[in-house]
Amino acid sequence: MSSIINTKIKPFKATAFHQGKFVPVTEQDLAGKWAVVCFYPADFTFVCPTELGDLADFYAKFQEIGVEVYSVSTDTHFTHKAWHDASETIKKINYPMIGDPTGTITRNFGVMIEEDGLALRGTFVINPEGEIKVAEIHDLGIGRSAAELFRKVQAAQYVANHDGEVCPAKWTPGEATLAPSLDLVGKI
Amino acid sequence: MSSIINTKIKPFKATAFHQGKFVPVTEQDLAGKWAVVCFYPADFTFVCPTELGDLADFYAKFQEIGVEVYSVSTDTHFTHKAWHDASETIKKINYPMIGDPTGTITRNFGVMIEEDGLALRGTFVINPEGEIKVAEIHDLGIGRSAAELFRKVQAAQYVANHDGEVCPAKWTPGEATLAPSLDLVGKI
Amino acid sequence: MSSIINTKIKPFKATAFHQGKFVPVTEQDLAGKWAVVCFYPADFTFVCPTELGDLADFYAKFQEIGVEVYSVSTDTHFTHKAWHDASETIKKINYPMIGDPTGTITRNFGVMIEEDGLALRGTFVINPEGEIKVAEIHDLGIGRSAAELFRKVQAAQYVANHDGEVCPAKWTPGEATLAPSLDLVGKI
Amino acid sequence: MSSIINTKIKPFKATAFHQGKFVPVTEQDLAGKWAVVCFYPADFTFVCPTELGDLADFYAKFQEIGVEVYSVSTDTHFTHKAWHDASETIKKINYPMIGDPTGTITRNFGVMIEEDGLALRGTFVINPEGEIKVAEIHDLGIGRSAAELFRKVQAAQYVANHDGEVCPAKWTPGEATLAPSLDLVGKI
Amino acid sequence: MSSIINTKIKPFKATAFHQGKFVPVTEQDLAGKWAVVCFYPADFTFVCPTELGDLADFYAKFQEIGVEVYSVSTDTHFTHKAWHDASETIKKINYPMIGDPTGTITRNFGVMIEEDGLALRGTFVINPEGEIKVAEIHDLGIGRSAAELFRKVQAAQYVANHDGEVCPAKWTPGEATLAPSLDLVGKI
Amino acid sequence: MSSIINTKIKPFKATAFHQGKFVPVTEQDLAGKWAVVCFYPADFTFVCPTELGDLADFYAKFQEIGVEVYSVSTDTHFTHKAWHDASETIKKINYPMIGDPTGTITRNFGVMIEEDGLALRGTFVINPEGEIKVAEIHDLGIGRSAAELFRKVQAAQYVANHDGEVCPAKWTPGEATLAPSLDLVGKI
Amino acid sequence: MSSIINTKIKPFKATAFHQGKFVPVTEQDLAGKWAVVCFYPADFTFVCPTELGDLADFYAKFQEIGVEVYSVSTDTHFTHKAWHDASETIKKINYPMIGDPTGTITRNFGVMIEEDGLALRGTFVINPEGEIKVAEIHDLGIGRSAAELFRKVQAAQYVANHDGEVCPAKWTPGEATLAPSLDLVGKI
Amino acid sequence: MSSIINTKIKPFKATAFHQGKFVPVTEQDLAGKWAVVCFYPADFTFVCPTELGDLADFYAKFQEIGVEVYSVSTDTHFTHKAWHDASETIKKINYPMIGDPTGTITRNFGVMIEEDGLALRGTFVINPEGEIKVAEIHDLGIGRSAAELFRKVQAAQYVANHDGEVCPAKWTPGEATLAPSLDLVGKI
Amino acid sequence: MSSIINTKIKPFKATAFHQGKFVPVTEQDLAGKWAVVCFYPADFTFVCPTELGDLADFYAKFQEIGVEVYSVSTDTHFTHKAWHDASETIKKINYPMIGDPTGTITRNFGVMIEEDGLALRGTFVINPEGEIKVAEIHDLGIGRSAAELFRKVQAAQYVANHDGEVCPAKWTPGEATLAPSLDLVGKI
Amino acid sequence: MSSIINTKIKPFKATAFHQGKFVPVTEQDLAGKWAVVCFYPADFTFVCPTELGDLADFYAKFQEIGVEVYSVSTDTHFTHKAWHDASETIKKINYPMIGDPTGTITRNFGVMIEEDGLALRGTFVINPEGEIKVAEIHDLGIGRSAAELFRKVQAAQYVANHDGEVCPAKWTPGEATLAPSLDLVGKI
Repeated sequence: MSSIINTKIKPFKATAFHQGKFVPVTEQDLAGKWAVVCFYPADFTFVCPTELGDLADFYAKFQEIGVEVYSVSTDTHFTHKAWHDASETIKKINYPMIGDPTGTITRNFGVMIEEDGLALRGTFVINPEGEIKVAEIHDLGIGRSAAELFRKVQAAQYVANHDGEVCPAKWTPGEATLAPSLDLVGKI
Repeated sequence: MSSIINTKIKPFKATAFHQGKFVPVTEQDLAGKWAVVCFYPADFTFVCPTELGDLADFYAKFQEIGVEVYSVSTDTHFTHKAWHDASETIKKINYPMIGDPTGTITRNFGVMIEEDGLALRGTFVINPEGEIKVAEIHDLGIGRSAAELFRKVQAAQYVANHDGEVCPAKWTPGEATLAPSLDLVGKI
Repeated sequence: MSSIINTKIKPFKATAFHQGKFVPVTEQDLAGKWAVVCFYPADFTFVCPTELGDLADFYAKFQEIGVEVYSVSTDTHFTHKAWHDASETIKKINYPMIGDPTGTITRNFGVMIEEDGLALRGTFVINPEGEIKVAEIHDLGIGRSAAELFRKVQAAQYVANHDGEVCPAKWTPGEATLAPSLDLVGKI
Repeated sequence: MSSIINTKIKPFKATAFHQGKFVPVTEQDLAGKWAVVCFYPADFTFVCPTELGDLADFYAKFQEIGVEVYSVSTDTHFTHKAWHDASETIKKINYPMIGDPTGTITRNFGVMIEEDGLALRGTFVINPEGEIKVAEIHDLGIGRSAAELFRKVQAAQYVANHDGEVCPAKWTPGEATLAPSLDLVGKI
Repeated sequence: MSSIINTKIKPFKATAFHQGKFVPVTEQDLAGKWAVVCFYPADFTFVCPTELGDLADFYAKFQEIGVEVYSVSTDTHFTHKAWHDASETIKKINYPMIGDPTGTITRNFGVMIEEDGLALRGTFVINPEGEIKVAEIHDLGIGRSAAELFRKVQAAQYVANHDGEVCPAKWTPGEATLAPSLDLVGKI
Repeated sequence: MSSIINTKIKPFKATAFHQGKFVPVTEQDLAGKWAVVCFYPADFTFVCPTELGDLADFYAKFQEIGVEVYSVSTDTHFTHKAWHDASETIKKINYPMIGDPTGTITRNFGVMIEEDGLALRGTFVINPEGEIKVAEIHDLGIGRSAAELFRKVQAAQYVANHDGEVCPAKWTPGEATLAPSLDLVGKI
Repeated sequence: MSSIINTKIKPFKATAFHQGKFVPVTEQDLAGKWAVVCFYPADFTFVCPTELGDLADFYAKFQEIGVEVYSVSTDTHFTHKAWHDASETIKKINYPMIGDPTGTITRNFGVMIEEDGLALRGTFVINPEGEIKVAEIHDLGIGRSAAELFRKVQAAQYVANHDGEVCPAKWTPGEATLAPSLDLVGKI
Repeated sequence: MSSIINTKIKPFKATAFHQGKFVPVTEQDLAGKWAVVCFYPADFTFVCPTELGDLADFYAKFQEIGVEVYSVSTDTHFTHKAWHDASETIKKINYPMIGDPTGTITRNFGVMIEEDGLALRGTFVINPEGEIKVAEIHDLGIGRSAAELFRKVQAAQYVANHDGEVCPAKWTPGEATLAPSLDLVGKI
Repeated sequence: MSSIINTKIKPFKATAFHQGKFVPVTEQDLAGKWAVVCFYPADFTFVCPTELGDLADFYAKFQEIGVEVYSVSTDTHFTHKAWHDASETIKKINYPMIGDPTGTITRNFGVMIEEDGLALRGTFVINPEGEIKVAEIHDLGIGRSAAELFRKVQAAQYVANHDGEVCPAKWTPGEATLAPSLDLVGKI
Repeated sequence: MSSIINTKIKPFKATAFHQGKFVPVTEQDLAGKWAVVCFYPADFTFVCPTELGDLADFYAKFQEIGVEVYSVSTDTHFTHKAWHDASETIKKINYPMIGDPTGTITRNFGVMIEEDGLALRGTFVINPEGEIKVAEIHDLGIGRSAAELFRKVQAAQYVANHDGEVCPAKWTPGEATLAPSLDLVGKI
């Protein structure tokens, strides 16, 4: 098993429910800007809405730093709309909710639970070249944190834009970064 | 590519530098308690000591909740000792530093960068049954956060110990959890 | 391609929404009585509720002649419940609505549209031995008729119970059947 | 096993008995208009003539809506002629009776009973593009209904000619159809 | 391609029309006595009835010398009966007319014309051990002779019953046979 | 096993003893006229000379209707000459006697007895296009009839030359033939 | 290609013409005594009789030293008898003349000319254990010498019976042999 | 196993000791004249020098009739020279002594004893076209005769130069040869 | 297993620590001059520094005769620098210390201990054409000698530069060499 | 290509010339004591005798420390004896000279030059368990040193007998060895 990190995302074709409309989405739509793709098991279940709602609350901040957010489950876009209609939490969501009933995207990112036909809780940060830079996967009952995700995306963007610098542990914007050099070997 | 989540860790044999000694470590040593396995690219480099130091600072807290921590790189245990001797940051480390010059463990967890012979920044939370419950992998320049890792381990332990409850997004101990039931369908 | 007629149904494990509860269903539950299995593309769509409602209206008559009815789509049972809550038509349904997110059952009966992850409009009549006796599959836009289905089930039951008799075209109970004999060769 | 629905019919070459003549028939003859292909087990048997006669009675109505009808068995065209000569019911038939002694067409449509060398009772509705839109297969003793077949062909034609409309359950010409729209999600 | 001569006939199961009844026939029915198996292309055609009639005229003589005769075509036994009803020539037949709609027997004897689904004009003489001793195959338009066939069966029986004797060219019962011996080498 | 009837004869190269000379023969020599190829087991044996002599007596008649005759065994042409010198019967032969010590021709026609290296008693009628129209194979002890062979060749020639006519059973020149037509179906 | 020398002769079953009788011969008949097997192309040819006659002249001497002689060609035993009858030279032969029409023995000794179906001029000396000790093969036109063959057999027998001695070049009985010893190295 | 007779010799490259020099030899050197290739097991052994000496004595006669002689063993050319220096018998040799330590030539002629790495006593006569016409192989202890070899080469040359004649058994120059003709069949 | 001697070195890409810098090294850097490649198991271990120090002491002499020296272990170049900083012995090294964490070079030269991920003590002398002329491999505990290595390189260079001469055992510059000639065979 | 170091020597059977006798040698003879196996290209050549003589001079010292010495070339044992007789240098040899004309041993140690059939100059030190501890291979013209070989064997023996000690570079008996310990990491 080799890592998904630094691989290109694979092609897909899907329909999303986005701000009251059904819209087509492909891997081409992710090209040219940073993206977060957030998988969850199923609409109309329990941990999922808290995570999607947490992400909805951070959506404006992600937009500010040029990041698009996509949620994905193996439900249809019809079901996404119905859930959006029915749930107060989901109603807050403004990012595209992708329907993946064939499981293509879910398998592309290696998070399909084959015996259930549902996705694990996987989050992926993708750069404008379509390469996966950060992956995070939880077993079903364990919720993620949108705040920490936001920190990671900021670090990934900083590193991408500042050649020769790297972000140390728990770095947040404004803190010092590191510029690797031979003199630092064994000195940190 | 299928997910590593909920798979059993594979067998390995290695030597670690641990509190001034060279000790053997196998997958058997992880059985029966929670474990965190933290991969990094190479000794005597730059982001790595900040992450390992961050983890060293949290080590007492991990110990308190019954979690052992292991760091792993493809360096030898001889080099781990030499780094421990040479670096102020690394000197703080009390957890076992595993040497993986054959790359066996690094490939077991799918984080080998084959063209470099070095590990990606991957962190894995493993339950007492040896099953991987949380995975997090960063490309080389992006540092991880020990605090967020600690939160995830707490959530994973809570879910494992409380049948019928799940932890919502960004949950920390003391906050409410969710108990899935048919009546909640579409109500969150 | 050989016909599904007279083959045994293949094993499956699923969860259904049935009269307010989530219940497990396997191929074992179909054994020992006649069954109708009715596939449709997706919850919260258009032709589907009219067909399922048509079937709901005939459900008492099917029950009277000892036939269980099952509807199946690739949606989850969570979504089935949500649809049942939301739609006036679906609310009438008293038969089990099976969730098949892995597509196992849908593929077992050969009605998966692989590029969509959705089922065709397929109806199957199954005898108490688990053998498929009648199959009927429509492309997506063309609705089925519960009345005609009821007639077919009655004919299938009559033939099964009356050795040596067969039902001619458009037969309904009470009409004459045929008893094949050598003297009839070329006489009908 | 994947469904035959929406696949193109496969090539074949055969001889039919048609209105007192032996005529060649290929898959090309079906192109450009709607067709019904009706398989039955064997000439000079029992259910078969009632079904073929039922279809003969509807033949004028099928012709009116531009549909050609073909019957097929694994008998030769010589036998079809002999049966037509011998049977009062079969004498009514004006549509082509295809002889398929090689079983090519019967296998093309997946209705060969290999251990008998005879066809199941399968009916297929094929659009002018040669794509199968409706399939219906009965085990041997269970007769079909030409009237219901006529209804299905009408629905299939309506859907093909009215973009954006679909036919609900048990629809017949003159009744309302449905135009799927996002607003209808969960409202039927 | 190796010869069929002296091979055992292969297993088959079929239904024959025999003296007003439908009877099962298998390769077991041929065991223990001499048999002639006579293939022809199709019922209700042209050369076939003359050949079958010729054979019917010799049937009593074959019976006298302990030989059963079977005719085989790829038509069904239903069609055989209908032909027997319809044709004056065929009505004379008292031997079993085997229906082979699956083509199993026809292929067993290597006389299937695959592109037509019909048998060549092949005749086979089979001894009580089930071994083929004489084969004769004509292309479609060329009729066989029952008289010559009768001569061959007599020669085959004579050789089988008289160890050490062989029948010279155009031998008929009563004529001298040959007893091979070393002294005859080069003397005939 | 599929039939040899209507296949093209395969290429061969051989030497024949013909009217006091050793001459080369290939499949090309058979092209353009009708041919009879007559296999027999071995020179200097017993049934063989009576059959070859029978054929020698008919040779003039075969020549008259444009048919060449070839005998073939797996002996060499040297042995054919020696036999011709030694045997009164064989001395009558004027047709080419082909030597086939490699068994190529014998295997081409499927009449090699592999465990003996000898040919079965097989006779084949070949048209000017090199296609086999009649095959007749006897086990070793059973002699053939040149008169019946002559009748078959005449029938084969008649059919080849009279499009639309076929020869009924035991036809000989001068007798009526049949012209197949739809009106005759079931009338013979 | 590895040598045939010191390999065991392979099994065969054949019929020989031997002193006026047809007798079976197998590889078992060669066991327990020395044998010479002499292949030649064909009966009734030219070099062959001189070689076989030469061997016939030496036969008594071979018999005296306990050696059986066998001649083999791909002709039948019938032809061998006919040749023995016809030729003055061959009439002298008292050793078994094996018929090998299947070519089994000829191929066993590697002397088949596949394009002709005839044997090369090969002679083999075989010891009582069935192992080939001497091989000699000539192209077709080059005759062998029975005298030299006799010398070789004598040398082979001498070596087999006198452990530790070997026969030098052109040795004949009575002449000195050599007893290899370390002292002779480089001294001859 | 097929015969080496009439095959072309395969390519090789070797070094020979020839009249006080080390010279290269390839299969090209054999082209255009007759050659004898004489294999023996090993230098400094026992039978070998007597055979090579016997051949040395005939060398002038072979030269006279245009034949080159080569001896071959799996020793090196260094060892050949050392043997030539050390042995009185070998000192007489004027023909090239080829060293074949790789065993290439020895395997080309099929005379390698694989378990010993030594050659059998094989002699081969090769015509100017590089085709092997005579082969003679002895097991280790049995010496060959140069005189008989000389006779065979003479016969091979005679046959090659006199089209239409063949050499009978034990022929030597001056004796009559045979001219095969049809009239001689069975007369010798 | 065939020898590495006289094979070309395979391509590699690596980073070395060389005189205070990190520099890229490929197989191209070895082209055009003599090179010594010296593998050892691991930095910060025990025999290794004495061997590398021994080589460091001879480095000036190797440079004088135009030879570059490379040390290789499976450690990273970071670790090489850290060792250079930490060890008095290693500080003396002026030749490039190659890091081979992927094991590519170590496997190229066949000295990887796969179960440890470490190199054996292997030394290779490579000529300017990139061909390996001398190989020397020790098990882990056995130290090498730089002085003897220096002698071997001198001999290899002498032989390369003096066509027709070879260096006898324990040769050192200034001593006599040997010029092979036919007269010397068996004289040394 | 993986290293031969620490592999077991493979089985072989050979004959050696040893102190005036021909004696069998197998891999079993090497068991239970230390051994040196010394390959060289060919007897009667140039560098080889100097190396073998150098080894002969050290043979008594090797014997004293319990080491047997074997020389191996692809010549036969006959040639070894002849060389021993002929050369003053070789006459000094008292160790077994193994003949390997099949190349088995030479290939076992990976030192066969396949295109020449000769061995490279390879020396191997083997422990009493049959494991190869030291390998040294030179291209043809470069002589080895028996003195350095003797040093290596002494080091290998010392390490084998003193658990926990290793021999540093250029160690000779009497000098200090190293005992690896964690405290020495980075201190040498």
